[in-house]
Amino acid sequence: MVLASESCGCMSTAQQSSQCITNFIRNPHILAMEEDYLYHLGLGTKTHDLPAMFGDVKFVIVGGTPKRMESLAKYFMHEMKAKLPIGTQLSDITGAAERYSMYKVGPIICVNHGMGNPSISILLHELIKLMYHAKCKNPVFIRLGTCGGLGVPGGTVVISDGVLNDKLNAEHEFKILGNIVARPTKLDVNLAQELKSLANLSDDYQTVVGKTYCADDFYEGQGRLDGAFCDYKEADKMKWLNMLRQKGVVNIEMESSMFAALTNQAGVRAAIICAAILNRLDGDQVCSINELFG
Amino acid sequence: MVLASESCGCMSTAQQSSQCITNFIRNPHILAMEEDYLYHLGLGTKTHDLPAMFGDVKFVIVGGTPKRMESLAKYFMHEMKAKLPIGTQLSDITGAAERYSMYKVGPIICVNHGMGNPSISILLHELIKLMYHAKCKNPVFIRLGTCGGLGVPGGTVVISDGVLNDKLNAEHEFKILGNIVARPTKLDVNLAQELKSLANLSDDYQTVVGKTYCADDFYEGQGRLDGAFCDYKEADKMKWLNMLRQKGVVNIEMESSMFAALTNQAGVRAAIICAAILNRLDGDQVCSINELFG
Repeated sequence: MVLASESCGCMSTAQQSSQCITNFIRNPHILAMEEDYLYHLGLGTKTHDLPAMFGDVKFVIVGGTPKRMESLAKYFMHEMKAKLPIGTQLSDITGAAERYSMYKVGPIICVNHGMGNPSISILLHELIKLMYHAKCKNPVFIRLGTCGGLGVPGGTVVISDGVLNDKLNAEHEFKILGNIVARPTKLDVNLAQELKSLANLSDDYQTVVGKTYCADDFYEGQGRLDGAFCDYKEADKMKWLNMLRQKGVVNIEMESSMFAALTNQAGVRAAIICAAILNRLDGDQVCSINELFG
Repeated sequence: MVLASESCGCMSTAQQSSQCITNFIRNPHILAMEEDYLYHLGLGTKTHDLPAMFGDVKFVIVGGTPKRMESLAKYFMHEMKAKLPIGTQLSDITGAAERYSMYKVGPIICVNHGMGNPSISILLHELIKLMYHAKCKNPVFIRLGTCGGLGVPGGTVVISDGVLNDKLNAEHEFKILGNIVARPTKLDVNLAQELKSLANLSDDYQTVVGKTYCADDFYEGQGRLDGAFCDYKEADKMKWLNMLRQKGVVNIEMESSMFAALTNQAGVRAAIICAAILNRLDGDQVCSINELFG
């Protein structure tokens, strides 16, 4: 995989804000702090030499589970023909804090974000600060996850070119000091197209680009019939799913609006790639066989 | 710890709804399903004998991290003088699904819920269905977590007697098929008092009962100054925190509104106990020393 990370994408891409986290952080209080301890990563500016540890990072890959992120790091090692010193193995850098698991292979870090917007929110705040403290140059952020497909079969790879919230707006509503602050869920459209161009006709799955609907729940929030509660009927669900389809939505998941809003706010190039584990127009239950795609 | 779980609390407590998950589930679709596979737990009605595995469960304890839940299960083993067969050890029952970690000691299961309302939402939907499929009798649900204290020092144990959302309402707003459905965040007040009565004057920490504010983010959503972004000032933060304090809020965390709304909806007795890792009126940063309370 070759991506144009060398140019300062966050400065040159019109869709992104005009400042780069390399030399700027949008919080004046951070500059006044003697120490910044990134609690959920277990890393701090006084306890760790963050530029030495992370200064070379070019790609920040985030995804749901710790094991998947470890597997991904091992895959990158294999693809990059990276070799570790004899008698060593990949180690979870942030495991001591017990919240997220992070692996590093050359200029790539792979971190799990758990499930849902609040969980990925904590991670992104601390990763963005980590990139700033480490003086990283123009890192690209990619969420690599799973999703329900909408009109596409299980196994389809979906690259997001936009994210809609429950009001069908392309924004995430933050609740800050009693106010609602809506921030745009913009992704880097050029990066999405660049990623799409890497798909191959010989792949045994299809790769599509489209809009993502972000829900705050797996069951009622995604119109499933199989949660602990369900006060609507199959017909209501299908009407809603078809309405989403008509709006250009091709997949549904639970972290995209926070991911898109915070990376855009930070001025970093960002993309979301998800594997569909089923087609929601065909059903709700994810059976164990589908875990092959997980 | 002795709690009155033998009586059917979910039927007798006026604050709870009138049906018990032992013999009732508030979703007619579940009854029509040939199989119910609880995807994020990796347990199914066809693949597992759920009544044999979980039919004796009386207490469902949920908390943030997998390791804390494993430690808690070991603590219960020690306190109950429970012995495992020679050559065996506690094992993560739901580890294969890679989403949540569950341990069982006699009639107690301990499961981690990750961070944030969406993450605990998925777990609760599947746990409530698990209790139903396993024919459990009147299980009590307890969230055992960490929080920021408000006017109480780090180390304080806070038992919630109510949960407020960002609008300062005692409800959680669910987004279902394009509509907002507000459900009350009621907890079992008698259970809260019963738990409070277990606190001892000789404890080297204080135990208080009060309202909990539920946020969807650790940084801006809780008025912290040390996130990747902050567009407000120290004085704005203090004004907001003091306003919460005046409403009776003694702690802030990220899972209580979903926990209270879904357990109340299911008609189960439920309580929230959190250890404060700092007093938010004194600062924002959680330093590594505070992890002793984590």
